[in-house]
Amino acid sequence: MTDAFDTDLFAQRLSNVETSAIRELFKVLGKPGIISFGGGFPDPNSFDVAGVAQAAQQALNDHPVAALQYGATEGYEPLREQLCALMANKDAAVKPDELIVTTGSQQALDLIGKTLINPGDKVIVEGPTFLATIQCFRLYGAELITVPVDDNGVDVEALEALIAQHKPKFVYLIPTYGNPSGATLSLERRKRLLDVAVQTRTLVVEDDPYGDLYFDKAPPPSLLALSATVPGSRNWLVHASSLSKNLSPGLRIGWMVAPKPLLDKAAMCKQFSDANTSSFAQVTAAVYLSSGRLGPALQAMRAIYAKRALCMCDALQRELGDAISFVKPLGGLFVWAKLTGAHGASTDSGALAKRAIEEGVAFVPGAPFFATHPDTTALRLSFASMNEEQIEAGVRKLKKALLG
Amino acid sequence: MTDAFDTDLFAQRLSNVETSAIRELFKVLGKPGIISFGGGFPDPNSFDVAGVAQAAQQALNDHPVAALQYGATEGYEPLREQLCALMANKDAAVKPDELIVTTGSQQALDLIGKTLINPGDKVIVEGPTFLATIQCFRLYGAELITVPVDDNGVDVEALEALIAQHKPKFVYLIPTYGNPSGATLSLERRKRLLDVAVQTRTLVVEDDPYGDLYFDKAPPPSLLALSATVPGSRNWLVHASSLSKNLSPGLRIGWMVAPKPLLDKAAMCKQFSDANTSSFAQVTAAVYLSSGRLGPALQAMRAIYAKRALCMCDALQRELGDAISFVKPLGGLFVWAKLTGAHGASTDSGALAKRAIEEGVAFVPGAPFFATHPDTTALRLSFASMNEEQIEAGVRKLKKALLG
Repeated sequence: MTDAFDTDLFAQRLSNVETSAIRELFKVLGKPGIISFGGGFPDPNSFDVAGVAQAAQQALNDHPVAALQYGATEGYEPLREQLCALMANKDAAVKPDELIVTTGSQQALDLIGKTLINPGDKVIVEGPTFLATIQCFRLYGAELITVPVDDNGVDVEALEALIAQHKPKFVYLIPTYGNPSGATLSLERRKRLLDVAVQTRTLVVEDDPYGDLYFDKAPPPSLLALSATVPGSRNWLVHASSLSKNLSPGLRIGWMVAPKPLLDKAAMCKQFSDANTSSFAQVTAAVYLSSGRLGPALQAMRAIYAKRALCMCDALQRELGDAISFVKPLGGLFVWAKLTGAHGASTDSGALAKRAIEEGVAFVPGAPFFATHPDTTALRLSFASMNEEQIEAGVRKLKKALLG
Repeated sequence: MTDAFDTDLFAQRLSNVETSAIRELFKVLGKPGIISFGGGFPDPNSFDVAGVAQAAQQALNDHPVAALQYGATEGYEPLREQLCALMANKDAAVKPDELIVTTGSQQALDLIGKTLINPGDKVIVEGPTFLATIQCFRLYGAELITVPVDDNGVDVEALEALIAQHKPKFVYLIPTYGNPSGATLSLERRKRLLDVAVQTRTLVVEDDPYGDLYFDKAPPPSLLALSATVPGSRNWLVHASSLSKNLSPGLRIGWMVAPKPLLDKAAMCKQFSDANTSSFAQVTAAVYLSSGRLGPALQAMRAIYAKRALCMCDALQRELGDAISFVKPLGGLFVWAKLTGAHGASTDSGALAKRAIEEGVAFVPGAPFFATHPDTTALRLSFASMNEEQIEAGVRKLKKALLG
């Protein structure tokens, strides 16, 4: 049966994407018994199961039709209000009709691609950036341009030059606890970035799934919040976020804030993509958010991730010394590290990944996170799903794989 | 702010779609106090709220991580097994890895478009067909060709000629209780259609959301079930279905069965569309389906829809006589009718829709359901959401709008 299918039928856009290497990699991440620093998943032990169960019951009791019937493509109104309240807590003033609910923030990215990208359009992304963003935009035929990132996030001067050179359709950034870079854009650069957007009339997409996951103090305000201080910048800003990292990825609740004409087109495209995001999940999420349980749940989550991040950074320093370099993240789920080659150790993180799996520890090599110019010395280590004992054991295995 | 957004940024594909007329129409459908034959929604009173509530609790109790964590893009394995059991009950043998779970069957259509349609590709659809299919495929740049439908479903001879003439990328059909036609493809034509698919090497997409909603006896076997009797035909068949009409649209659980190479590409595209369908909804649906409650719930639903369909057909005949013609549907949610012009009445269903709303009854005129060659005499009347008293009152209002 397999052989008979005429693969000439496939659309041209599929040839823009190559995922087999990544898929192979993710297969081994799930191998039983392995210590995994590989996934980008939140810690399942942090889920507020009782709170969601209570919210689901209340949703079905009090709002059975809203929860089980088709809903507005734009999203369930009480959820839109709750999401605005979340953003207001972080100093961003958004009205319910200035956002649409999406099926995870992944769908926000897909709708951005669908509404904006013509084949051949240029889009600037960070090097490195989120894997699924690269593939998502390439499926719409985007030509991706890479802007470098340092410890303070994206290099805004370099970005300005690239905008002038390439006149991109838009710029996509994860300014806070970037995946995979872990970097956070400084307040000064955030303001400068919004100025650049206005001056060059360039749309900026801020993807902000990790902003709630800070360890010590809150990150700088989002571009969305800061846009109130930079006249005109809100017209050039799209903001995507989700409940996946602070509540539960399984609900698949994301949202996007965008200028009205773009939001309307995104809603139209969503109508023909999945009609609406699960009403059942939306009503449950709305009830959950109104219960006031998210704050305490998040505080507990932050404490756990902060401890694990510290544990991993300490262990990396202790075990690997100057064979590895990294900046301690201030939040999020990831340590982004580079192999330095000290002590004659390898600088090839792809080769290291294979040896590491033989030792029983997995991570994701950095190269696939670059749309262009891959850094083959880089690796992404997630501390989110492993406890401290596992993290220390995993880093020891990593040492063995790297230094013998 | 609205004015400032540069609409030149929009992708070319958006100009293939024009939805403002439909959106205007759907706005009035929701006007309070109106009797609506307009929506395509199932009756919310038919939802098994208690069953879903019980399933949700069990899902979170017994499978909290599966329900709240990211899941496999292809779908939650126990749900895939339950969906296979549903299909097996209708004589279609499908293995769990021969389907992927989608966010409603609307997403299956979107993934079919994304994997297969190049701009300019020809796709054959029924005239009339599902509104959102037309727009979904046009967003990918499809040129739609219309094949006529009669009381026994699609005209397979005409289809064969159109396939020879246009060499379409695929053919999209709703063979059972079509939306909006209400028509059901005869067994003989189903077999012939599968032969044609094999002989002409043409992919056929069977969309089957309504097959469970029969009034008296079950419809002919699906193309999927029949494919076992036509050698080679399974290689040319895609089958999409959902739990939206038999359980709840709010869960947004659909699925697609397709030849392996196509299914793999659809899963890849889904990964970058929404990562996975709500795990929470999937685990709840799997638990619900394993509870055995669907069968009795469906039987009750069928009895209600059968009574309402009969009520509507009787009322239409009694009140409108030969000013209207229609075939009594054998299942589904819709009566598809045509204005005959008898007694000097109007044959313009669009104009009638406006007068009908003034009288307090809404329906959808037929024209937008045609990708080409609209039939302006046709109208779609849904009996699903109104009780018998409302149906009779609505038809009397329709009479007043049509005959004065």
